[in-house]
Amino acid sequence: MMPAAEALALALTRLHDLPALSARLGTPLEAGDIAAILEEAARFAEERISPGRLEADRAGCALENGVVRTPAHYRPLLEEWRAAGWQGIAAPEVHGGQGLPHALQTAVFELATSADMAFALMPMLSAGAIELLCHHATPEQAGRLLPPLVSAAWNGTMCLTEPQAGSDLSAIRTRAVPDGQGGYRITGSKIYITWGENDLAENTLHLVLARLPEAPPGSRGISLFACPKVLPDGRRNALRCGGIERKPGIHACPTCTMIFDEAEAELVGEPHRGLAAMFSMMNAARLAVGVEGVGQCARATLLAEAYAADRVQGGRPIAEYPDVARMLSEMRAVTQAARLLSLDAAICIDRARAGEPGAEARLALLTPIVKAWCTDRGVEVAGIGIQVHGGAGYVEDSGAAQIWRDARIAPIYEGTNGIQAMDLLLRKLPRALPDFLALAEEAGAADPALRAPAEALARAAERLSTASPDEAGAAAAPFLDAAGWVLGGAWLARAAAAEPALEADAGFFLRRLLPRAEARLAEALAPA
Amino acid sequence: MMPAAEALALALTRLHDLPALSARLGTPLEAGDIAAILEEAARFAEERISPGRLEADRAGCALENGVVRTPAHYRPLLEEWRAAGWQGIAAPEVHGGQGLPHALQTAVFELATSADMAFALMPMLSAGAIELLCHHATPEQAGRLLPPLVSAAWNGTMCLTEPQAGSDLSAIRTRAVPDGQGGYRITGSKIYITWGENDLAENTLHLVLARLPEAPPGSRGISLFACPKVLPDGRRNALRCGGIERKPGIHACPTCTMIFDEAEAELVGEPHRGLAAMFSMMNAARLAVGVEGVGQCARATLLAEAYAADRVQGGRPIAEYPDVARMLSEMRAVTQAARLLSLDAAICIDRARAGEPGAEARLALLTPIVKAWCTDRGVEVAGIGIQVHGGAGYVEDSGAAQIWRDARIAPIYEGTNGIQAMDLLLRKLPRALPDFLALAEEAGAADPALRAPAEALARAAERLSTASPDEAGAAAAPFLDAAGWVLGGAWLARAAAAEPALEADAGFFLRRLLPRAEARLAEALAPA
Repeated sequence: MMPAAEALALALTRLHDLPALSARLGTPLEAGDIAAILEEAARFAEERISPGRLEADRAGCALENGVVRTPAHYRPLLEEWRAAGWQGIAAPEVHGGQGLPHALQTAVFELATSADMAFALMPMLSAGAIELLCHHATPEQAGRLLPPLVSAAWNGTMCLTEPQAGSDLSAIRTRAVPDGQGGYRITGSKIYITWGENDLAENTLHLVLARLPEAPPGSRGISLFACPKVLPDGRRNALRCGGIERKPGIHACPTCTMIFDEAEAELVGEPHRGLAAMFSMMNAARLAVGVEGVGQCARATLLAEAYAADRVQGGRPIAEYPDVARMLSEMRAVTQAARLLSLDAAICIDRARAGEPGAEARLALLTPIVKAWCTDRGVEVAGIGIQVHGGAGYVEDSGAAQIWRDARIAPIYEGTNGIQAMDLLLRKLPRALPDFLALAEEAGAADPALRAPAEALARAAERLSTASPDEAGAAAAPFLDAAGWVLGGAWLARAAAAEPALEADAGFFLRRLLPRAEARLAEALAPA
Repeated sequence: MMPAAEALALALTRLHDLPALSARLGTPLEAGDIAAILEEAARFAEERISPGRLEADRAGCALENGVVRTPAHYRPLLEEWRAAGWQGIAAPEVHGGQGLPHALQTAVFELATSADMAFALMPMLSAGAIELLCHHATPEQAGRLLPPLVSAAWNGTMCLTEPQAGSDLSAIRTRAVPDGQGGYRITGSKIYITWGENDLAENTLHLVLARLPEAPPGSRGISLFACPKVLPDGRRNALRCGGIERKPGIHACPTCTMIFDEAEAELVGEPHRGLAAMFSMMNAARLAVGVEGVGQCARATLLAEAYAADRVQGGRPIAEYPDVARMLSEMRAVTQAARLLSLDAAICIDRARAGEPGAEARLALLTPIVKAWCTDRGVEVAGIGIQVHGGAGYVEDSGAAQIWRDARIAPIYEGTNGIQAMDLLLRKLPRALPDFLALAEEAGAADPALRAPAEALARAAERLSTASPDEAGAAAAPFLDAAGWVLGGAWLARAAAAEPALEADAGFFLRRLLPRAEARLAEALAPA
């Protein structure tokens, strides 16, 4: 497979003109700079993060006397991550970041996730917290809270879910009461808090959704608070980890129940506007989860290629057997398509920042597709990876099963893939049908093989954009999936046109995998 | 979902006339007998086996001083299994069995697997050993070795794989040397031996593939031996468990490395004909693994239905949301189709025993399809089950993740699904194309929606039956998958015609899932 750093550089410089875009953003990067950053990130991921992946999975994490113990090598690894400055790659320079394009951060996180997803989730959540504070904190708050997050001295969390409020955040019950001195006291329980408690960072800043007294009911009465584990005067805040979940994967990443018992906190943004603030960074967060799927695709493919090249049966490496070659081809083609699709969305964040017309609308449409399609592919490609390994794939030593177990969280994180599909079909498509039709038309022009499926996608979008909510809800998931196959295939076709080394991947995708788009459209359009 | 016992009874009495067939086999069963046996098996599975499933997964198994410790409740459970006589349901009465049709054993094992796959693997492997000895042991051997296996006092294993001999069994190196007294001494290492060592059964009978001195090289020089853990005089035989594998699932089922060090053994069948003997029971063994997929589909669906009915978001159970309803519909439809498809193959075993013309050929064609399609669906449906649970699906307490982890072994067992696909396309189709075309035609007649995909399947079979081995190898997996969607859909259509309660499942399958068949055929026919 074309190495990740090379494919990422190809996309960012030859398919998207990131050098020109970065100049418009005031942080000019030459193609050579971009390639060098990606090479260095890939080196860091492969040489520093990846070697501990299996050991981290075995060691897992444990809650002991209120402290979550993580794998022994994670602390020096986080020090190296800090020292190398990766956390702040896209953060403002004024807060210690490098101010580089979001697309580069996306690429770096793909590489880090691919190396060890459990570890990478900590910086990924911190990046989300940074982004949120950049948009919604006061200048004073930003100056105080951002530098330690940007340097990765602290980690950040997102405290949204409660036992009764999963996909329906309007049901949140956690309360925040003014303390009479401009601060607040938070009381309540949050579940599924990624890296909520840990023995690695100097401090943990929780971004917590809670209700103020007499807040309106439902989603318009939720406010956002920043609530540190350790207070500025060194006291421990009144919050603790009540338990960590047993999970099939990401064993080294604690998934915490966090209990706030009149914990000291400060308001971020306007009262009652917390959900809107949280959703304002949802595109970036959902894109980040989609990129987790890409990273897992890439790792699964690397492992399978290495195994199939080494494992000899019947006198030749199994990679030469047509059915194994088919599996490896599918893994490679899907990995590249998912990567290119996710970068389309990532670069829209930078384009929107540069004021390019249409970038926001494109991002809004692409985000649920990237989140759901790339994470579904992550699980699927990891499953094919197990199959390439045969019996060894079901034995943990090979590492293939770990990828599959780890990847399985991503279709759930940040709104399940079903929620993504409904976001696309019920919320975004009716508002932006012309933009979606333009996307489909653009995809259909990328290769003759794409014309028919892209047209079928456009027709389905037209029809479903006026369907009843029940019809659209039942059609949403297969429609989104079809969109992923078409748009991913289009990117792979464009990449192959620019770079002959990707022609085999594109040919395999367009000839053999693309028919899945029409099957999913037939499913979407059939009566439920 | 229609309860498993009811769906199984419907299939065996109203779609297949098992009462008439059982009479021809000399063990006449009324429809009421069949329903009663299935009800009782379902009760045993739900009340005795299933309650310990999560605890067994948590406890797992461990190798301590040469002994594999298994979950504490497995010993009394095995006693109950023995006492109830389930092990011998299809075994000859002369050896203590009940002599009932193989299709009933298949149904019982679906229910047991669905209750706890890790546990059910022990009786399933023993059933394979029983079947093999029934066909290949001398009457004296059968009289001595079968009764304790049939009563489940002993468990049986299949010792095939070696580190260098996975999918290619011709590479086996384990040696068997005559001891000069009519017996043999076996030396070598076998890996991936399911339930190879355990603290449950009184004794373990290993069926071992090994080479005699001066055996011809390759697959025609392999012999089959029976090698007990405990010798008739009570001495421990010279074999031991060298380790157990860490696996993502079936934690309570030990997957053992078995080391034979001049272990005493006896020849089963003809010298050098061991691989043929082993393959003679391969249809039954592969079918049994396919049925594991069905059992996992069924359990995943039950868990998801229960969760979706209970979990309230936005004021109503999530089962009422169209996207969740879609997922549940897919789970139900695929489960029923997989069950019906597997029973078609199972009843062919009985039909062949009754001398029905064409039954053997049909079984030969259906076996790889059932093995691969049903086990792929097991993983897929279990994955949808996780998704129905949302965040709770990735937390082990829900049980949804366990089904997914356990189910993942089945596409690998007994010849990977890639091997199944090549068996179908390269070995069986060229020899039995007319039989396959008849199968497809029969499927096309089951419902108007099936006509086009069944014709496409037949045309693809004709074309691929004359393809080069490389072309056919690259086409094999998607071709097999397409066959599963068509044949499974046909069974569901027939079942719905007989029983209106299945109309919704059939309608969903034919309208929404069947397009996948044509997508997979397009993939199979595209140049690789």
